[in-house]
Amino acid sequence: MMLTVVILGTGNVAEHLFVAFTQSEKIHVAQVVGRNMDRLKEFANNTLISDNFNKIVDADFYIIAVKDDAIPLVSQYLSDKENIVVHTSGAISMDILKQKNSGVFYPIQTFTKGKSLDFNSIPICIEAKQQSGLQMLHKLGSSISNKVYEISSPQRRKLHLAAVFANNFVNHLYYVSEKICAEEDLPFSLLHPLIKETADKINYFSPCEAQTGPALRDDIKTMESHLHLLKNKKQTELYTLLSEAIKEEHEKKL
Amino acid sequence: MMLTVVILGTGNVAEHLFVAFTQSEKIHVAQVVGRNMDRLKEFANNTLISDNFNKIVDADFYIIAVKDDAIPLVSQYLSDKENIVVHTSGAISMDILKQKNSGVFYPIQTFTKGKSLDFNSIPICIEAKQQSGLQMLHKLGSSISNKVYEISSPQRRKLHLAAVFANNFVNHLYYVSEKICAEEDLPFSLLHPLIKETADKINYFSPCEAQTGPALRDDIKTMESHLHLLKNKKQTELYTLLSEAIKEEHEKKL
Repeated sequence: MMLTVVILGTGNVAEHLFVAFTQSEKIHVAQVVGRNMDRLKEFANNTLISDNFNKIVDADFYIIAVKDDAIPLVSQYLSDKENIVVHTSGAISMDILKQKNSGVFYPIQTFTKGKSLDFNSIPICIEAKQQSGLQMLHKLGSSISNKVYEISSPQRRKLHLAAVFANNFVNHLYYVSEKICAEEDLPFSLLHPLIKETADKINYFSPCEAQTGPALRDDIKTMESHLHLLKNKKQTELYTLLSEAIKEEHEKKL
Repeated sequence: MMLTVVILGTGNVAEHLFVAFTQSEKIHVAQVVGRNMDRLKEFANNTLISDNFNKIVDADFYIIAVKDDAIPLVSQYLSDKENIVVHTSGAISMDILKQKNSGVFYPIQTFTKGKSLDFNSIPICIEAKQQSGLQMLHKLGSSISNKVYEISSPQRRKLHLAAVFANNFVNHLYYVSEKICAEEDLPFSLLHPLIKETADKINYFSPCEAQTGPALRDDIKTMESHLHLLKNKKQTELYTLLSEAIKEEHEKKL
């Protein structure tokens, strides 16, 4: 028997979940509901769409995939629903949902409009107020991913924080790196293989073992010449703080 | 006609260059010279080895692949050689080599002992004092990589600095991220797909376009709750500085 899903929201998470569910034989997306009719139309060939939150159809799952701030408002339109209501946020506690039968369905990934992903390998963190809801979320998660984990709200909060370091902050370092290249008219693509390999290494070594560079070696000459090259104040602060942090953490191990 | 190479050094760069050259039909590695006999023995099945720097054989190229500090010393043993002498460092100027016929052969990559790599896609930065040397380095580079670029010493210095941000500093953020996961007994592998996708995104978007997260949105509530979760001083400083840097850079664009 197909499980039915209503998706609330039309952003990147909604889009990617929609594609994954549509490809699964176990799931039928009954409806996508959102405010933005232009975005809604992109779903229209494959499901019902509505921009009226008072016209949400019945389903086995209601997935709120909207900005964190909008979760409480959207959840109010689901107050009379009996089946499980979940949000998809890493940062927000399960308790924000007032329904008795509610939970969280958080895929740990960065979703970009139009860039397809293999959902199968994306870890999905689930949490539910009721045991029956948890079982349902296991079914839903395993229909699109091999990696479904029960993660509590406090754990998920930490995971989201860790993801900010590994994704948002890492991307900012890519940004700084690109800027430095641009100062010498060097294409950032020169560093793409290095960036790919740096990310790939963690599959074989812990980041602790994988650490290299002037800060680890306490190579003061190289660090001074690097600081001399940096003209931007924030970049200098970042270089100094990250170098100190590397030295400090790795000295501890000695 | 095969071009002949002598490699000075037995570290990770030497090992990876050796493997790449050995696989090329255009290059013959005539000798590997180093101090460490245990490491040297790993090359012994495929080339001559020596731990005596006074017994360096003649070749078309002498590649100094040793720690930055040791380059001047090793280069002294090559003072009577007529063919081109190069080092492989990102941070060191070409002028450290006193030979008339000298240059730089810098592959932009992080090399790990025993972890094989597709050398073909690794950018190689070349530089030479003489035009004839530059032509030879083009031949050498293109025998193992599709991406050979002429890069001056000042450009290479900036590139190396950019690589410190994109590789060493990024790896430290992975390290922090792993630590935060460990505090809640969460396996760091939960973040591996996110890390992979973050690195992959730069092939499609500039890091500026790819930026997401609480700092970009100026989502003060989430940032405060994250800071509240961090117990380590350096981690707090990193979170604050990186968030400020993201805000500052992206406000500029508005």
